[in-house]
Amino acid sequence: MVHIIKNIKRPAPDVLKAVAEFPPATLHEAQGRTGALDWRIKPIFPGMQFCGPALTVRCTPNDNLMLQAAISIAQPGDVIVVDAGDSPEQGPFGEVLATAAKARGVAALVFNCAVRDAPAIRKLGLPVFSIGLSIKGTVKETLGEVNHPVVVGGVHIEPGDVVCGDDDGVVRVRAAEAGAIADKSREREAKEAGFMERLRNGENVLDVLGMGRVLEAKGCSWES
Amino acid sequence: MVHIIKNIKRPAPDVLKAVAEFPPATLHEAQGRTGALDWRIKPIFPGMQFCGPALTVRCTPNDNLMLQAAISIAQPGDVIVVDAGDSPEQGPFGEVLATAAKARGVAALVFNCAVRDAPAIRKLGLPVFSIGLSIKGTVKETLGEVNHPVVVGGVHIEPGDVVCGDDDGVVRVRAAEAGAIADKSREREAKEAGFMERLRNGENVLDVLGMGRVLEAKGCSWES
Amino acid sequence: MVHIIKNIKRPAPDVLKAVAEFPPATLHEAQGRTGALDWRIKPIFPGMQFCGPALTVRCTPNDNLMLQAAISIAQPGDVIVVDAGDSPEQGPFGEVLATAAKARGVAALVFNCAVRDAPAIRKLGLPVFSIGLSIKGTVKETLGEVNHPVVVGGVHIEPGDVVCGDDDGVVRVRAAEAGAIADKSREREAKEAGFMERLRNGENVLDVLGMGRVLEAKGCSWES
Amino acid sequence: MVHIIKNIKRPAPDVLKAVAEFPPATLHEAQGRTGALDWRIKPIFPGMQFCGPALTVRCTPNDNLMLQAAISIAQPGDVIVVDAGDSPEQGPFGEVLATAAKARGVAALVFNCAVRDAPAIRKLGLPVFSIGLSIKGTVKETLGEVNHPVVVGGVHIEPGDVVCGDDDGVVRVRAAEAGAIADKSREREAKEAGFMERLRNGENVLDVLGMGRVLEAKGCSWES
Amino acid sequence: MVHIIKNIKRPAPDVLKAVAEFPPATLHEAQGRTGALDWRIKPIFPGMQFCGPALTVRCTPNDNLMLQAAISIAQPGDVIVVDAGDSPEQGPFGEVLATAAKARGVAALVFNCAVRDAPAIRKLGLPVFSIGLSIKGTVKETLGEVNHPVVVGGVHIEPGDVVCGDDDGVVRVRAAEAGAIADKSREREAKEAGFMERLRNGENVLDVLGMGRVLEAKGCSWES
Amino acid sequence: MVHIIKNIKRPAPDVLKAVAEFPPATLHEAQGRTGALDWRIKPIFPGMQFCGPALTVRCTPNDNLMLQAAISIAQPGDVIVVDAGDSPEQGPFGEVLATAAKARGVAALVFNCAVRDAPAIRKLGLPVFSIGLSIKGTVKETLGEVNHPVVVGGVHIEPGDVVCGDDDGVVRVRAAEAGAIADKSREREAKEAGFMERLRNGENVLDVLGMGRVLEAKGCSWES
Repeated sequence: MVHIIKNIKRPAPDVLKAVAEFPPATLHEAQGRTGALDWRIKPIFPGMQFCGPALTVRCTPNDNLMLQAAISIAQPGDVIVVDAGDSPEQGPFGEVLATAAKARGVAALVFNCAVRDAPAIRKLGLPVFSIGLSIKGTVKETLGEVNHPVVVGGVHIEPGDVVCGDDDGVVRVRAAEAGAIADKSREREAKEAGFMERLRNGENVLDVLGMGRVLEAKGCSWES
Repeated sequence: MVHIIKNIKRPAPDVLKAVAEFPPATLHEAQGRTGALDWRIKPIFPGMQFCGPALTVRCTPNDNLMLQAAISIAQPGDVIVVDAGDSPEQGPFGEVLATAAKARGVAALVFNCAVRDAPAIRKLGLPVFSIGLSIKGTVKETLGEVNHPVVVGGVHIEPGDVVCGDDDGVVRVRAAEAGAIADKSREREAKEAGFMERLRNGENVLDVLGMGRVLEAKGCSWES
Repeated sequence: MVHIIKNIKRPAPDVLKAVAEFPPATLHEAQGRTGALDWRIKPIFPGMQFCGPALTVRCTPNDNLMLQAAISIAQPGDVIVVDAGDSPEQGPFGEVLATAAKARGVAALVFNCAVRDAPAIRKLGLPVFSIGLSIKGTVKETLGEVNHPVVVGGVHIEPGDVVCGDDDGVVRVRAAEAGAIADKSREREAKEAGFMERLRNGENVLDVLGMGRVLEAKGCSWES
Repeated sequence: MVHIIKNIKRPAPDVLKAVAEFPPATLHEAQGRTGALDWRIKPIFPGMQFCGPALTVRCTPNDNLMLQAAISIAQPGDVIVVDAGDSPEQGPFGEVLATAAKARGVAALVFNCAVRDAPAIRKLGLPVFSIGLSIKGTVKETLGEVNHPVVVGGVHIEPGDVVCGDDDGVVRVRAAEAGAIADKSREREAKEAGFMERLRNGENVLDVLGMGRVLEAKGCSWES
Repeated sequence: MVHIIKNIKRPAPDVLKAVAEFPPATLHEAQGRTGALDWRIKPIFPGMQFCGPALTVRCTPNDNLMLQAAISIAQPGDVIVVDAGDSPEQGPFGEVLATAAKARGVAALVFNCAVRDAPAIRKLGLPVFSIGLSIKGTVKETLGEVNHPVVVGGVHIEPGDVVCGDDDGVVRVRAAEAGAIADKSREREAKEAGFMERLRNGENVLDVLGMGRVLEAKGCSWES
Repeated sequence: MVHIIKNIKRPAPDVLKAVAEFPPATLHEAQGRTGALDWRIKPIFPGMQFCGPALTVRCTPNDNLMLQAAISIAQPGDVIVVDAGDSPEQGPFGEVLATAAKARGVAALVFNCAVRDAPAIRKLGLPVFSIGLSIKGTVKETLGEVNHPVVVGGVHIEPGDVVCGDDDGVVRVRAAEAGAIADKSREREAKEAGFMERLRNGENVLDVLGMGRVLEAKGCSWES
C-alpha cells in the first residue's frame, strides 16, 4: 500500500466558486439531505467559513505525523480533512502547524478531534473546524495515510470532494456532482427568497409553504 | 383529540413586563429552585435574551410540520417552545421559518434539538435557544400537537406559562404565579444589591452572607 | 481533620510572572505533557485568560458552603480551584460571589461544574472557567475542605500550585517546578518562533520540523 | 406549600392488572407514542420488570432525605419514582433503603440518577431502574416534595399514574386513561400476533404489514 | 436514482466461513487496524455474536420504512446494517420485524440507533447490535436506500462487505480482502497462541512480546 | 526522572484482608465519602469484584507499552491501575496481556479507557474494570511511567493504595488509612445490619434511621 498520494483531482475553479456561493445547509438539502458531518464538528470560533477541495488524512489517534506530511503537499485553497479517531482529548494541530498551513495557502482544516493554540489560530485568521479545544499535544510515531478516502463525522470523503463549512457545521459535496448541486442550490435559494419575500409581506406561513393542505390531508384538527 | 389549540390564555402585559426585569437565575431562585430547563439548552450565540408567554409545540422527532402550524398562529411577543425529541442531530428550524417567525413578531424560540442557518438567524436578530446547530433538515410528514402541555429540557410547560432566557439558559415561570415570582425576585435582587454593595466596600463574604455562623454551627475547624 | 487551611505557600512573584508569559499549551509541553485539565473545562466566554497560585476547595456536590469560606480567605492574585463533583447541572457561583471574589482581588476561578449569572460575571471582567452554565443554584449545608489537595478535571492540584488558562483550557504547573517549566517554555517558544519564521518564508514543514527523515525511517511510501 | 402528600388516588387493582399484561413498548404505541422515559433509565440488571402506581418524590440533587419520607408512606405495589436532578454521579439509594422498601412491599423504584449497593439489591430481588450505578452516597439536609407531580426522564408523572418497565425502559400511562390503554394494547398485540404468525409462515413482510403499497405510492424504485 | 438494489455480490461461502472463525478484534488487527465500528455499537445482551455479508440500509432518522423493504429481500445469512442517523432515542426495530427477519434467515442486524422489544428479541435468539434500547417506535413515511454504501459507526460499508460482531463490537472486512484477512488472522492467532503458551509457562511478558528491547531503545529507566 | 519504579510498599496482608471484607460503597462512606472513581469505570461483565494494592501505570493515550512493563513486574494479588487518557475508543488490553497478567497472579486491572477480547477475558476469570469495550488496539511507541502517582476516574492513586471494586464501581483507600477504614466499615456494617433487621421486622424507616426528627426540625409539612 502507498501511504501518501500526492496528486489528486480537484474540481475546476468555476465549479468550486459556484459551490462556495451557498451555505452548507443549502448544499445539504440540494443533494437530498446527505453529506452533513456530525453536528459536533464546528468552527473553533463563531463566524468562520470555508469551501474547497478535500485533502484527506488518516492519523493514528493521538499522533499527528501524517498531518505534517499532508500540509507539506497541500495546494492553495485545499481543505485538509483529518480523521484522528473521533475523540476530543487530543490536540494534534497548533500554532506551528497553523503557520505552516497558512504559508501553503490552505483554506481550512477539519478535524474529528480537538486542536490547540486557539488564540494564535484565531489571530492567523485560519478557519479550523473541530470537536473542541484541547491543550494536549500528540506524538509523531505511527504511519497513516494521505489522500485515501476517510470517514470524518460519519461522512465518507474522497480526496477532491468539495467540503464547505460555516457556523452550522460542515458538508461534503461529491466532486462529480458539485456542479449539479450548485445549480440545485441556486434554484432552491431562489425559491426560498420568494418565500421569504412573501413572509416578510405578512402572508401566512402555511399558505406560503403549502403546508395547510398537508395538515388538512393528514386529518389535523383545530380548536379555535 | 384536537391537534391544534389556537386560543390560549396569556399573562397580562404588566405581569410579563414585571417578570422580564429579572434574569432566569433570579426567577429560578425566587420560585424555590424550580423551573430551570436542562443546561444544554442555550442561546445559539452568546448574549441573546428573551421573556414571553409560551406557545407550545410537540413535533415528531425529525419532523417540523407542527412547528409551521405553530408559527402560523403565533401572536407578537410569543415564545415558541418546541419538544422535538431531545436530540442534537436535527435542524427543524432555519432561515425561512425564522423569517416567518420574525414577521409574526415572535419574541424567541426554544428547542430541545438543534437548529440550522445560524448565520442568517443571527442577522435577523431573533433569539433562538437550542442544544446546538445542525445542518440536517427534517421531514414534514407526521402530526403532533400545538398548545398542549410539553416537557422541554426536563420541565413541564403549559401554554401561556412565562419562559425567559439568557446566557445562563431558560427558566419557566407558571402563569398563575408570575406576578408573585416577580415580586419575590425584586426583593431578592434588592437584598443581593445590598450584599454586593457591602462586598464591594470590603466586608468579608462570610459576614455579609451570614455563613460564618453556619460554618461554626456545623463544627468547621480552621487552621491558620 | 482540619477543614480549612488558611495559610499556604505561594510561588514567588517573579516565578508567577515568568510562568504567566506562556500559554497553557506551551506549559503542558514543557512539563512533559502533563497537567492539562479535562478539555471540558473552558472559559465561560472566549478570550478569558489567567495565571496564578491555586487556592483549592472541595465542595459537596450541589453545595457551595466551602466556596464561600474559600473566598473569605483568598489573597489578591489567587486562583480558586473548585472540586464540586464534576457535573454540569449545578451553578454554585453567581453574581454575588463573583462580586465578593472580585473585591478580594481573586484572579480567576476554575470549576468542574457549571456557574450562573454569566452576563453579570462577564461585566465584572472576572475570568471564570467551568464545564458550562447552569441556572440552578446550590444549597449551603455540608462541610468540605479548603486548601487540601483536590482533583479537578482529572488533575491533582495542591494549594499553591500554579494554574493557568486560556481558550485552550487550563493547565497546572507544580509549584516546585514552576521556575524550571517557565525556562523550558521560553526555550520551546524560541525554537518554535524560529520554525515559524522559516515556515512563513516558504520552507517545507517536513524540513523545518525534521519529520521527513522520520517518515523515511518508518518506511513511508509516496505516490506522486 | 405542603411538602408531603400522604394519600393519593391509585388506579383500581383490575386496571393495574390489565396494564401489567403488556410490555412498555406496546403501551407506548397504544397511547400514541407518548409517555416513554429517557432511554438512559434502565434496569440495573437485565431482566427486571414491574408495573404499578407512581409514588412521586422530588429530592434536591445529592440529597435523599425525601426518598426516606416517601418509603415511609409507600403502599404495597407502589412504584417510587424519584426526580433527583438527572445526574449519574450520585447514589441516593442502597441496601438499607432497599431493605426498607422491600419490607413495605414497594414493587419497584425508578431514578433519574444512579443507585448503589447493586449486588445487595440484586439479592433482594427488588426491581430498580436508574441511569447507572454510583458508589457515592448523598446527604440528608434539604426538603423536597412527595406526591407532587414530577418530571423524570423527560416525562411528566403525577402521583397515581401507572408506570411500567422492562429491559426496554420505562413508560408512564396516565391514571385516567389506563383502562383504555390496556384495551388498545390488547388489540394491538392481537393484531401483531396475527402478523407474526403470517411472518413465521413465510409471507413477505411488505405484504403482511402493507408497506409495499406505501413504497409504491411514494415512488420507490427497485433495481433487481 | 434507484432506491432499492436487490441483487448484490456476496463473498463465497468458504470465505465467509473462514472469516467467521476469528473474533472482530483479531480481524481488525489483521487488516491494519481499520474497519472497527464505533465502540457504542454493542450486542443488546452480552454474548451475542455473528458474521455475514452486509445488506445495507439508509433510513431517514426516526423512520423504519426502508428497513422493512430490506428485510423483504434479505437472504439467509445476511447481516442487515442500518444507518438511521446515529441517535439513541429511536427504536425502529422490535418484535414484529425481528420475527420477519428471523423467518428470512437473517443472521444479525446492526444499528447506529436503538431497538426495542429487547426481551422478545432475546427469546428469538436473534443477534442484534445497537447503541441502546429505546421504547420509542418510529414512523414509516420517507424513502431512503437499500444496498447503497452506508457509513455506520464511522465505518464505510458496501453491500456484500463482511461484518462480524461479538461483545467487543463490530468490524467490517472488505469483500475483496476477506480471504486474505482470514489468512492473516490465522497467522496472527497462531503467533498469539504461542505467546500465550509461553506466558502460561511463566515467561516474562517483555521477553515473550519483545518489548524489553523496545523499552531499552527508547531510554526507559528502571529503579528497583 | 525514573520511568519505572519496581519496588513499592504494599499494605500488610491482614490489612488487605480486612479491607476486602467490605463492598466499595461501604468503604467510601467509611472514609468520609472520598475515593470513589468515576461512575463510568465498571466491571466489563456484571458480578466481577476485587480488592488489592495498586500498581499504577501512566500510558500515553492509544499506547500500551508501559502496561506491558507493569505486568512484567506485578506481584500476585496486585491490582494494575492504568491511566490511559480517559477515552473509550482504545483497547490497550486484550487476551494476550490478560494471559500474562493471569500468569503473574494479578488480581484485577482498572482502566480509564476500554479493553478488548472481552469474551476471552471472561473465560480467564480475570476481573477487569473499564469504561467500555473497544475493538481498537493501540501502538507501543511512547514511554510513560510505572508506579508513580496517577489520577484515574478523578481519584489520585499512589502505588500501594488499596483499590476495591464490584458492580457499583471502584474505590481507593489510602494505604496508611486502610486499617482504620476497615474498622470504621465494620462498625458501619454492624450498625446497618441492626437497621435492616428492624426494617425487616416492620419498623418505619423514619424511626429506624432517625429522619423523622430531622424532617420535623426542617419544617416539613404533611398532608394526610
